[in-house]
Amino acid sequence: MIPRYARQPMVDIWSPETKFRIWFEIEAHACDAQAELGVIPKQAAEAVWARGGNATFDIDRIDEIERETKHDVIAFLTHLAEIVGPEARLVHQGMTSSDVLDTCLAVQLTRAADILLEDMDALLAALKKRAQEHKMTVCIGRSHGIHAEPVTFGLKLAQAYAEFDRCKQRLVTARADVATCALSGAVGTFANIDPAVEAHVAQKMGLTPEPISTQVIPRDRHAMFFATLGVIASSVERVATEIRHLQRTEVLEVEEYFSPGQKGSSAMPHKRNPVLTENLTGLARMVRSYAMPAMENVALWHERDISHSSVERYVGPDATITLDFALSRLTGVIDKLLVYPDRMEANMNKLGGLMHSQRVLLALTQAGVSREDAYRLVQRNAMKVWHEGADFFDELTGDEEVMASLSKADLEDLFDLGYHTKHVDTIFARVFKG
Amino acid sequence: MIPRYARQPMVDIWSPETKFRIWFEIEAHACDAQAELGVIPKQAAEAVWARGGNATFDIDRIDEIERETKHDVIAFLTHLAEIVGPEARLVHQGMTSSDVLDTCLAVQLTRAADILLEDMDALLAALKKRAQEHKMTVCIGRSHGIHAEPVTFGLKLAQAYAEFDRCKQRLVTARADVATCALSGAVGTFANIDPAVEAHVAQKMGLTPEPISTQVIPRDRHAMFFATLGVIASSVERVATEIRHLQRTEVLEVEEYFSPGQKGSSAMPHKRNPVLTENLTGLARMVRSYAMPAMENVALWHERDISHSSVERYVGPDATITLDFALSRLTGVIDKLLVYPDRMEANMNKLGGLMHSQRVLLALTQAGVSREDAYRLVQRNAMKVWHEGADFFDELTGDEEVMASLSKADLEDLFDLGYHTKHVDTIFARVFKG
Amino acid sequence: MIPRYARQPMVDIWSPETKFRIWFEIEAHACDAQAELGVIPKQAAEAVWARGGNATFDIDRIDEIERETKHDVIAFLTHLAEIVGPEARLVHQGMTSSDVLDTCLAVQLTRAADILLEDMDALLAALKKRAQEHKMTVCIGRSHGIHAEPVTFGLKLAQAYAEFDRCKQRLVTARADVATCALSGAVGTFANIDPAVEAHVAQKMGLTPEPISTQVIPRDRHAMFFATLGVIASSVERVATEIRHLQRTEVLEVEEYFSPGQKGSSAMPHKRNPVLTENLTGLARMVRSYAMPAMENVALWHERDISHSSVERYVGPDATITLDFALSRLTGVIDKLLVYPDRMEANMNKLGGLMHSQRVLLALTQAGVSREDAYRLVQRNAMKVWHEGADFFDELTGDEEVMASLSKADLEDLFDLGYHTKHVDTIFARVFKG
Amino acid sequence: MIPRYARQPMVDIWSPETKFRIWFEIEAHACDAQAELGVIPKQAAEAVWARGGNATFDIDRIDEIERETKHDVIAFLTHLAEIVGPEARLVHQGMTSSDVLDTCLAVQLTRAADILLEDMDALLAALKKRAQEHKMTVCIGRSHGIHAEPVTFGLKLAQAYAEFDRCKQRLVTARADVATCALSGAVGTFANIDPAVEAHVAQKMGLTPEPISTQVIPRDRHAMFFATLGVIASSVERVATEIRHLQRTEVLEVEEYFSPGQKGSSAMPHKRNPVLTENLTGLARMVRSYAMPAMENVALWHERDISHSSVERYVGPDATITLDFALSRLTGVIDKLLVYPDRMEANMNKLGGLMHSQRVLLALTQAGVSREDAYRLVQRNAMKVWHEGADFFDELTGDEEVMASLSKADLEDLFDLGYHTKHVDTIFARVFKG
Repeated sequence: MIPRYARQPMVDIWSPETKFRIWFEIEAHACDAQAELGVIPKQAAEAVWARGGNATFDIDRIDEIERETKHDVIAFLTHLAEIVGPEARLVHQGMTSSDVLDTCLAVQLTRAADILLEDMDALLAALKKRAQEHKMTVCIGRSHGIHAEPVTFGLKLAQAYAEFDRCKQRLVTARADVATCALSGAVGTFANIDPAVEAHVAQKMGLTPEPISTQVIPRDRHAMFFATLGVIASSVERVATEIRHLQRTEVLEVEEYFSPGQKGSSAMPHKRNPVLTENLTGLARMVRSYAMPAMENVALWHERDISHSSVERYVGPDATITLDFALSRLTGVIDKLLVYPDRMEANMNKLGGLMHSQRVLLALTQAGVSREDAYRLVQRNAMKVWHEGADFFDELTGDEEVMASLSKADLEDLFDLGYHTKHVDTIFARVFKG
Repeated sequence: MIPRYARQPMVDIWSPETKFRIWFEIEAHACDAQAELGVIPKQAAEAVWARGGNATFDIDRIDEIERETKHDVIAFLTHLAEIVGPEARLVHQGMTSSDVLDTCLAVQLTRAADILLEDMDALLAALKKRAQEHKMTVCIGRSHGIHAEPVTFGLKLAQAYAEFDRCKQRLVTARADVATCALSGAVGTFANIDPAVEAHVAQKMGLTPEPISTQVIPRDRHAMFFATLGVIASSVERVATEIRHLQRTEVLEVEEYFSPGQKGSSAMPHKRNPVLTENLTGLARMVRSYAMPAMENVALWHERDISHSSVERYVGPDATITLDFALSRLTGVIDKLLVYPDRMEANMNKLGGLMHSQRVLLALTQAGVSREDAYRLVQRNAMKVWHEGADFFDELTGDEEVMASLSKADLEDLFDLGYHTKHVDTIFARVFKG
Repeated sequence: MIPRYARQPMVDIWSPETKFRIWFEIEAHACDAQAELGVIPKQAAEAVWARGGNATFDIDRIDEIERETKHDVIAFLTHLAEIVGPEARLVHQGMTSSDVLDTCLAVQLTRAADILLEDMDALLAALKKRAQEHKMTVCIGRSHGIHAEPVTFGLKLAQAYAEFDRCKQRLVTARADVATCALSGAVGTFANIDPAVEAHVAQKMGLTPEPISTQVIPRDRHAMFFATLGVIASSVERVATEIRHLQRTEVLEVEEYFSPGQKGSSAMPHKRNPVLTENLTGLARMVRSYAMPAMENVALWHERDISHSSVERYVGPDATITLDFALSRLTGVIDKLLVYPDRMEANMNKLGGLMHSQRVLLALTQAGVSREDAYRLVQRNAMKVWHEGADFFDELTGDEEVMASLSKADLEDLFDLGYHTKHVDTIFARVFKG
Repeated sequence: MIPRYARQPMVDIWSPETKFRIWFEIEAHACDAQAELGVIPKQAAEAVWARGGNATFDIDRIDEIERETKHDVIAFLTHLAEIVGPEARLVHQGMTSSDVLDTCLAVQLTRAADILLEDMDALLAALKKRAQEHKMTVCIGRSHGIHAEPVTFGLKLAQAYAEFDRCKQRLVTARADVATCALSGAVGTFANIDPAVEAHVAQKMGLTPEPISTQVIPRDRHAMFFATLGVIASSVERVATEIRHLQRTEVLEVEEYFSPGQKGSSAMPHKRNPVLTENLTGLARMVRSYAMPAMENVALWHERDISHSSVERYVGPDATITLDFALSRLTGVIDKLLVYPDRMEANMNKLGGLMHSQRVLLALTQAGVSREDAYRLVQRNAMKVWHEGADFFDELTGDEEVMASLSKADLEDLFDLGYHTKHVDTIFARVFKG
């Protein structure tokens, strides 16, 4: 966790305080279920809640015990016994450490997913607002970095909206994948614990029972979760890359918001650099990379080994905290993005009308010219514009072979920008569903 | 594509023949829609189907044209014109190469997904059959590679079943993610092509229209698809690793089927090596690795660049062909797996009954002994068994402090194997849903 | 292997013909050493060379035997016996399949490295030639995509030269890492084969003996090799990305060479897209991704397992063939790159002289103005240029507070381009070593 | 950084205190060189050292300034000015932030490499000591997890020694790769700073001048560094995996040291789990994963962008701290590893002598039996041993066809263990060089 790329609510999910509080809840709910089953006395379960429910766990003390026992759950239970008293020996009956650890991780990941889903809602709202604002702000579309035909800046944002809408759906699916609870005891057979305990704890913790655990919850669930975060991060990178391109000196169609006190460079005061989106590009690389060790975690040995644990201590917090920060930063960038329609228009007109070449090509073929001839005609005029800075419209109207098939009025029509934006409404309706 | 790790039906999806056939269908269906809209004459569309519908495309000829034009779709269209004649100039109206290429890729990936889904059905069937066969075949459960408590071999297979059932669901989701069609023309604005054409082609090709494309279908879809294959491959690795472990000389609870003519080693004829599951481990590494470049493909520049294309020429075939082969090989391994219940029992009994230690520990605490004392009592007898090869039952019955809390009958009860398998039915019902 | 991204000499290294020829040489050289040691008769070794030395191995026949025996080396030896006759039983004495396979892989990888080293020499030569040609071709340097201060196009190429010079050195190191030979027999103890055989074969095959093998050559060597290729591919991506940026419509300082017959787009004939460098970007993603499974291959079980083998069947050819193609393509791009010095100058002057702001800032502080005041002075004039398109020189000379510390002559001096290129010679001397 | 997987000296390298101290040194040494060149007064440089040399930088204050300026180096320089006074305006003359940041990173990475090299020396010493201790401790070698032929436990450790010896050499190379200093000013042209300043600072900071920087040090250097750490981590995983295998209940040839206070499981007191090596397996996955974003960092845009920076804030500390911890933990594991030669012998003899099959096979062929017949003879006796638990020696001596070619004395000789260890001295001499 890098403090400068971290927001408090997500960081809190991964704090020792939160972890021990979740551990306590799992143990205490399990006690309730065990008491209901008659495995332990009801007053024992009540004592656990009564004395532990509002207790502050002493993290230093737990760490001290762990240093001796080298076992984190035993250290916690020992400390809990110091708080709860003799009834503590009835806590954790039939359970194994993984029941606590894996169910806790499920709670943490689902809470993290909830924050990320909120982040995505905020991002989607910002994208939608700016997309509608610039729905008809025409700019040049580029393929291969080369001018192609006109689009609108709203379409660019609508594309991002659609992509993050998919990402949100993927995260909802991934959240469900990790939202399971296992209290199945050693090697997962329920030999020492009734499945009813798992059902009760699952319900109380907002999870569903893991159909079959093997002491641990299977790690394909977590692999899918972190792979999904990697894909979402890649979509963050796509938007970030777009903005970085559009902010280039030669393009300058948009700029990240630049606050008054901010200095762009220690040396060149005129520079306004897209540092936020460059930063997002780097953060995306990190979140993406966490998918790989998460996938390697799947093939645990037999019923379980502990190799996944260290990986999860890194990627659990790092992937969720970083992506939360990135989504929030991206939302801010979109929300405050400075958009320059004049520059968009100026850039678009830079090529003397060449962006209309495709239309002219089509019109020629529809007027009966063979594809090869039409291509040749368009190309020879386009090349003049390209090399001599001429105007495409003027060149075409001056080309007899062209004018043999098209009138000047035809050409005026072909150079109409509205032609390119006529389906923007249709597309917006598809993306924003009305 | 490595021939020895490839099966024909999946390979065929990626052949030039299949590709050009799909290209033709996209173009021809588009002609139908264009004719319906009155953009081109109906007889032109009919001519395309009539002359191209059963034509065999000459791949060498297309390659030859491509060498000159350096453009694959133009090469195909030129060759198509050689077959169809003058009406060919009305093919591809308003479309751009990506409309053909990306829609074709969607068709290929969904067909590939269909084969993979069949593979998974076959694997699930094999797992279910063998799981039920060995539902009550008791063997030792192991955590950290160390004996823990009894499970059944059927539970191991049921776990794999549940995992692949999830993987199948993930693939269904991933398939839907890539099953979109884009015929939106240059930079995706539909300026030169009516959205109705896309709707028609999508319906005919078994796809849904991409809500917003930018000449290309957005690559987050493909990233999610290949990331999902990576997770599935990791689950393949998990089962493969389990079998490799169980086939070790010292364990030998299962063996891959060994055909009569097969030689295990050029030097050591007694060796029967788990080479199929070792191979699957390697294949899983490969499929997993393809997720990374697929994620890097997401951030294309502006409306599109072509950097994704070379990546997809590799990972499209390689990931699907390899995973198809791996799933099929794993199905064969499971189906024919030699299972040795006697060895399972012998291994389980190797530790003189220590696997019952947890039950004894619980019984002692339930009989009123403190957790710490119970732990100490169990540990001191366990250590004798461990170091001196004694029998745990005998040691416990000889320990006065233990017998002060538990009777011999209690202990006999605690050493009953049925205790560990009593919830196998419950778990099977959860996994196989009846 | 994707044929369109493959060159014949590298492909040939990975052909069955080459593989079986190398296998033969390893076996035959081993026979010579065994004969020298008296383990087998000299005439047996001679017979192997005499009858096998020029033999063409029948790959279909070998495949046929392998289908029965399911063992590739046994299949080859059986076929060899068909060629050599009864003396063949003395071939492969004391050896194990891995001795042949791993030593063969070492030969293939070193030969592949040799081709890659030649590729890099060609690339370095092209970079050097073009760097010297454009040593003093001034263009704007950009940080964050924003104009900074002047550099020269030659410096850009010199940087690439220095980077590939390092990459070459890394490949030399990586080549040495995989250039080892193991003929140590089962589990690597030399129990059945004298170390002298290994020494002889190593020397004949251009390798060094592996100090300690365990039937297999340790896979950290291969991991390092493929990780190195991944780094080199990343450097390819850097140059490719630079060219893609410089070819953007708004920048257009360079263009990939565009051959007469080539069509840029099926729809927009004026487009000249940087498709080669976009392609290189994708190829770099692939080569980079192969590092991951190669690293996962290191942790084989005990003395060896065979999980590495399938991975190497993919990444051995794919990584080397792809990188060879990429380096060669990049060399061609550099060699024929169209460079537009006029555009470079025009772009550089676009900001009205703002690129000199840093110099002015320094001059002010050296004239005694505090850093904060100097920054404020530069910034207020820069902002006017930026927003109103004014000329920086004119603004500064019109600013009384500035002119209190600097004369007009001072400013003229500060706007001299030669100031920025005065150390180009120094840098070139450092990079090209004279 | 995960505190439980971190050691203080490595953590300290990445602390803000260390970073600001290095920044100060770079700036102060640069002042000396600038004073020497006459660019700034000597007393200014002296004042910087005099007032800043022993100053404690107030990190909270620097953070406060950074929150306002959003620029870390300006924040530091502003704070430095608060300490040094008016001469501070002469600090950082002609430099850019990257000069400070990248040179600082070079210092941090080389210091980190130095710690890692010490770690590797300690690991090599432990491996050598234990290898020599168990040079002749015979155990079974295993391929595919299946018994093959005898090796010694010392050979296993010697292999690890040789592998880490290579890894050390790789790290020495990687350290040199990142040990460069850049003080070349904006876009790296030295326009505002004399190369002599860079030379002086490089020499003082233990670095070499970067031949050509572009404001930043090229990131192929860092990619190579982190890729190398990934390979080393993979070698850690290999040794860890070996120990995990050998500690399995059924094998139990070694055990991680188990301290008296340690509890293996909250439920099963007899369990002694290889948790340290399982942990190392997970840590290896993490270190390996950091290679990928480091490689993606190489292709910065033009002279530089800042996308690498966030990646390096993670992987700089995380990769080095984790690998330092892992190497140190592995050294402890090796140093204190419990080795059970009796179990090694017992396991080896489990197969009734089958491990000698290869020798018998060879002896038969050398006695004139064809390879196919010899294979058949060995196989039929081996299969009896395998299936019926018979003794291989007894079976062979009872097989007339075998005895037709070999005498009982021959067979006794063939079953001699010394045969397998006769080259251990040779191998040790190769690995330990005397």
